[in-house]
Amino acid sequence: MASCATNGIDITGVRASLYPMRADFAKQILESVAVTDTSAVWQQTDLFSTVYRGESASVVDAAAGLFVNAYDTTTHLVGEFTFSKGCPGDIAGDSYLTGQQLRPNAAVIKEKGDFLVHCKYSFYTFGRDDYMTEIEHIVTMAADAGLQPEHAHYCTFLTGTAAQLFNYFAEILAYAHDHMSHYVVEATVSVNSPSLEEN
Amino acid sequence: MASCATNGIDITGVRASLYPMRADFAKQILESVAVTDTSAVWQQTDLFSTVYRGESASVVDAAAGLFVNAYDTTTHLVGEFTFSKGCPGDIAGDSYLTGQQLRPNAAVIKEKGDFLVHCKYSFYTFGRDDYMTEIEHIVTMAADAGLQPEHAHYCTFLTGTAAQLFNYFAEILAYAHDHMSHYVVEATVSVNSPSLEEN
Repeated sequence: MASCATNGIDITGVRASLYPMRADFAKQILESVAVTDTSAVWQQTDLFSTVYRGESASVVDAAAGLFVNAYDTTTHLVGEFTFSKGCPGDIAGDSYLTGQQLRPNAAVIKEKGDFLVHCKYSFYTFGRDDYMTEIEHIVTMAADAGLQPEHAHYCTFLTGTAAQLFNYFAEILAYAHDHMSHYVVEATVSVNSPSLEEN
Repeated sequence: MASCATNGIDITGVRASLYPMRADFAKQILESVAVTDTSAVWQQTDLFSTVYRGESASVVDAAAGLFVNAYDTTTHLVGEFTFSKGCPGDIAGDSYLTGQQLRPNAAVIKEKGDFLVHCKYSFYTFGRDDYMTEIEHIVTMAADAGLQPEHAHYCTFLTGTAAQLFNYFAEILAYAHDHMSHYVVEATVSVNSPSLEEN
């Protein structure tokens, strides 16, 4: 696989941060971290984020589970997600690889993940001249997924349900895995923003 | 300049988002946007962020002003900043260029910006094989700036004062301007995290 060419490491990861804009934000974050099923990924929480590492479908499953579990109908919640694979400086450890692309949160995501979200994201890939072509392809995949991509300064905006959005992240990570050696998705997902009411 | 080679556009920009973890978060964001001096940059606020575009020193000045103005001694505040220059898809407009690298918020940043912050960040550059070497140089500059860089999965952690951190961002953007055609800094800055008390 092309993705193994750089350093032989076949680990995808996500660095996920939650920002619930409410007084008892810590409780909301910690409860979501606790109830998300992480049986298919390596995990570690630090000052900024919870990091999940493993197979790409399992990593997206954990990230989607975390966001869906933190969601409620009133809190303005923002999630910041850095998906990455293939950094030449990455290490071989800190992962959980079964070859099965397990998705233990799939049922929860399907059940709870049909609320509307807005997303800003950028796709980055490195060490190649045709990176803009690959970025354009990734955005085309968003249109095909019904996520209505809109160009903005320094990112692309997407609109859809949470389940639809994370499914798209799984699709582009699978595409990138087959075509690129090192890539990053920087995505910020927002729900219940009061700014929506002004528009 | 190398940075103009790709598309002839010499505009740096930042997409800045504030996440104050409190019930009246919107007021805190809007007040900070309002009091920050944006006389030296083009600006636009959308659902996610406020975007500033212009000369790199002016753009960092506006971003630092925004964060320092939003800070108080108790709120857990997170700021997400995407600094970028040289994207081949960027447009020539939406900017304010005087050739003077004006920093109208410098006095406020100096006066109010001596509080301790934690940062996670990544530096990305595109279309070149030696991108890891450039990333290493950028991290070395953080050590030289006294920001105690620590490697983590998918980012580097920094610790210092707000003023010190944003000064470093100005330094690396100036370095990148001289050496690279397209680059991005993705930085998340945190103050008053309750997780700090547990460590």
